[in-house]
Amino acid sequence: MRSIDLNSDLGESYGAWTMGEDETMLGLVSSANVACGFHAGDPAGILRTLRAAAARGVAVGAHVSYPDRGGFGRRNMDVASEDLRADVIYQIGALKSLAAVAGTRVTYVKPHGALYNTIVADPRQGRDVVEAILAADPSLVLMCLANAPLVALAEDAGLATVSEAFADRAYTPAGTLVSRREAGAVIHDPTVVAARMARLAATGEIEAIDGSTVRLQADSICVHGDSPGAVAIARAVRERLEADGIAIRSFVAA
Amino acid sequence: MRSIDLNSDLGESYGAWTMGEDETMLGLVSSANVACGFHAGDPAGILRTLRAAAARGVAVGAHVSYPDRGGFGRRNMDVASEDLRADVIYQIGALKSLAAVAGTRVTYVKPHGALYNTIVADPRQGRDVVEAILAADPSLVLMCLANAPLVALAEDAGLATVSEAFADRAYTPAGTLVSRREAGAVIHDPTVVAARMARLAATGEIEAIDGSTVRLQADSICVHGDSPGAVAIARAVRERLEADGIAIRSFVAA
Amino acid sequence: MRSIDLNSDLGESYGAWTMGEDETMLGLVSSANVACGFHAGDPAGILRTLRAAAARGVAVGAHVSYPDRGGFGRRNMDVASEDLRADVIYQIGALKSLAAVAGTRVTYVKPHGALYNTIVADPRQGRDVVEAILAADPSLVLMCLANAPLVALAEDAGLATVSEAFADRAYTPAGTLVSRREAGAVIHDPTVVAARMARLAATGEIEAIDGSTVRLQADSICVHGDSPGAVAIARAVRERLEADGIAIRSFVAA
Amino acid sequence: MRSIDLNSDLGESYGAWTMGEDETMLGLVSSANVACGFHAGDPAGILRTLRAAAARGVAVGAHVSYPDRGGFGRRNMDVASEDLRADVIYQIGALKSLAAVAGTRVTYVKPHGALYNTIVADPRQGRDVVEAILAADPSLVLMCLANAPLVALAEDAGLATVSEAFADRAYTPAGTLVSRREAGAVIHDPTVVAARMARLAATGEIEAIDGSTVRLQADSICVHGDSPGAVAIARAVRERLEADGIAIRSFVAA
Repeated sequence: MRSIDLNSDLGESYGAWTMGEDETMLGLVSSANVACGFHAGDPAGILRTLRAAAARGVAVGAHVSYPDRGGFGRRNMDVASEDLRADVIYQIGALKSLAAVAGTRVTYVKPHGALYNTIVADPRQGRDVVEAILAADPSLVLMCLANAPLVALAEDAGLATVSEAFADRAYTPAGTLVSRREAGAVIHDPTVVAARMARLAATGEIEAIDGSTVRLQADSICVHGDSPGAVAIARAVRERLEADGIAIRSFVAA
Repeated sequence: MRSIDLNSDLGESYGAWTMGEDETMLGLVSSANVACGFHAGDPAGILRTLRAAAARGVAVGAHVSYPDRGGFGRRNMDVASEDLRADVIYQIGALKSLAAVAGTRVTYVKPHGALYNTIVADPRQGRDVVEAILAADPSLVLMCLANAPLVALAEDAGLATVSEAFADRAYTPAGTLVSRREAGAVIHDPTVVAARMARLAATGEIEAIDGSTVRLQADSICVHGDSPGAVAIARAVRERLEADGIAIRSFVAA
Repeated sequence: MRSIDLNSDLGESYGAWTMGEDETMLGLVSSANVACGFHAGDPAGILRTLRAAAARGVAVGAHVSYPDRGGFGRRNMDVASEDLRADVIYQIGALKSLAAVAGTRVTYVKPHGALYNTIVADPRQGRDVVEAILAADPSLVLMCLANAPLVALAEDAGLATVSEAFADRAYTPAGTLVSRREAGAVIHDPTVVAARMARLAATGEIEAIDGSTVRLQADSICVHGDSPGAVAIARAVRERLEADGIAIRSFVAA
Repeated sequence: MRSIDLNSDLGESYGAWTMGEDETMLGLVSSANVACGFHAGDPAGILRTLRAAAARGVAVGAHVSYPDRGGFGRRNMDVASEDLRADVIYQIGALKSLAAVAGTRVTYVKPHGALYNTIVADPRQGRDVVEAILAADPSLVLMCLANAPLVALAEDAGLATVSEAFADRAYTPAGTLVSRREAGAVIHDPTVVAARMARLAATGEIEAIDGSTVRLQADSICVHGDSPGAVAIARAVRERLEADGIAIRSFVAA
């Protein structure tokens, strides 16, 4: 039976503020990218999310970020290599400690927000993140944007990667994401999104924004957890994939 | 040959701000209480201190704190149990991750500042800290104030402890610290401090503020790292102890 | 025509996290206690709330807090007088600057959360807050818990006060709040709450938890803005008061 | 008698961490760029610096920054316009409030670190800062890098500016700063620095790094406050200027 991973950003509440529907999403995804306290998440809230992930058998990744809670890690920051590497090592360790207490473990790393977008193509920061992960725990897997230069950079350094597609995003004919600033960049209809992901999971192909067909090597599909329609899209994708005989399963060996 | 541990708070710089003379102190002490980012320390600076400790063979403890950088962890905070436990687990994990990268490991926990003072006698927060350490890593040792109720609380819960004396502090006839608000609470003369610690290490006795003799079970002596006279006191204590044939050695098996 | 003020805590979103229904509440209350960035609120979000308050003609107060975003200002903190005074002066100034840009002005101060509860009875911190307000702007009014020792402390120092009742809280026969830890401390039925506030506004009396009648000198009624039932209670109170011929109006002269 | 302003960054301690020699520098400069809490400075420490500035008759400017305490405001951050404007308004207001309590007032704004460098040439962020200052208080003056495009941008918008030269920095033949990454960018000899500033103050000319002469319209000279040699350079510059009959005086009318 074919399978694919479904991942979502979780644990992003902070103190008195809540974000996302972690409990519901944990019933739909196979991998949880859990905040580590730098863009979101406080230790007690992170621990609750980890316990819920452990109870559901959902795999856990470290959703490491720039240190920018006020900007939710979405602002580009010119962090020096020494700081960026240590920040990543720190976040991975903090999450591993909480994960062990919750009865689970961290198996992969998915950078968050601006850091994610920057290292797609910035080799300096990309190398910093890769080196930090290898230093912290070389058994971890780096979750990357499919078709990004980061994939080869990480693999060449000896770090295993998985590639992900974004369920609700349009793609260029080159297999890159259409910028959010352009019309049609985000697809809102759950049925359309689900059909696109079903095709991708079955054939490795997706229709680009110009109607052409593009190949995308995706081991995981990202569904968002923090927008109103997020749950509907996640549910539609999961149900469609399962109906097509594709299991939702983490890329990590059980 | 008799031996005793010498510990100091290190890694307490933050970003552009420096504090203490970590390099010098690491040449004098056998245990470094390293900040974990909640009251002081940023990941890159903590990593530098850990590397220096590893190079010197100095044992590393997690200097966990309330989340209060602006108050340097010195302000009492009424942190709920769920938060306090998770905060401690998070800090221990973050430091362990950085320590492993630095080629060393965290072997004990010493709470910092207001948290340290609170759990000396507050069983609720004391239990939270003890449970958090046991959950994070039951092989860790808790460094406690000698003669404090916390010692029994921790030992009863199955957590190993070491007790420490403060080199430059006066003691009551009951073996507790004289409050800083009282005259004579802090001893400034390095020679006097060193002589007191030499007697303590040799006999387990110290002269109380009223001239009486009090027994103090101390496995470690705390010397401060962040005041102008700190280095002079640390050096005087170390030299006097060594002159008396008492080795400065971590309580942790090598 | 009789009138009373209705106040609520607003502007408590933070970065990517939202809290409360500011727009809806601003249509119901006459005074907005606006967060100043220490427990909640980022400058851009505060400015949006201030603009909405200005557009509605709702009076603005500075909702000053301990510096504890992670704890939402709800944790007791032992802040030194020098720090507490400067923190209050800083927050008032920051809010005044944003308020002026929004076309309105800060007319009162209502301490938040743990600071509010502490200064009800702690004369040291109470004096610090009073002195800070007088230093920052002696024309400001301090909003206090009705019947609290703080009222006299402030008035004696030359700081004008207004007293507030809590719409959904039970009172002791002595006119103090029933602790949240006790059964019946919070009243959830909007109709009951509205009836109690209508009686209070008309007669200055409220039924205590033991059924006795207690006098409460209240210039303002606090309705919460951040719980699911908050809007329903605020609406019920406002409608009932207006139906009884009591206008909802700020205590500040227009 | 000719005069020029001498300015320095002050108030940059934070909580338990100290930075710079504020008291000494306040005896040498005529303008203090005081931290506002976003990159450095806590309210009580800022207030102490403001009181010392008031006692010395030193003019006060708001040293506004990106919200990045961990990076000391030195990291480029892609802050959205709405946030940047509100952040600047917030900081100005907070400092004005503390300044009034200290018996002085804020008369100008000097952006700090990465924000300063960015708006030299980035019109989007430059406009945000200019608009924020005009909205907060149009009587404030913006302190700009001499010869920067920001000067015209601000003046065109109706905001008064003063231009500054950096005492210890080398200049290109075009009148811009030599990048710190290039050899000779920073001049360390106090006598050389003082002679260069004396010539600049007397003639409006400075020797560029290639030996050519470049004109620099400078109303103020920036001397640093946070490096070991900072005091020596500030003192040398002041003494030389005074010896040459040039008074050290704020650009703000007394």
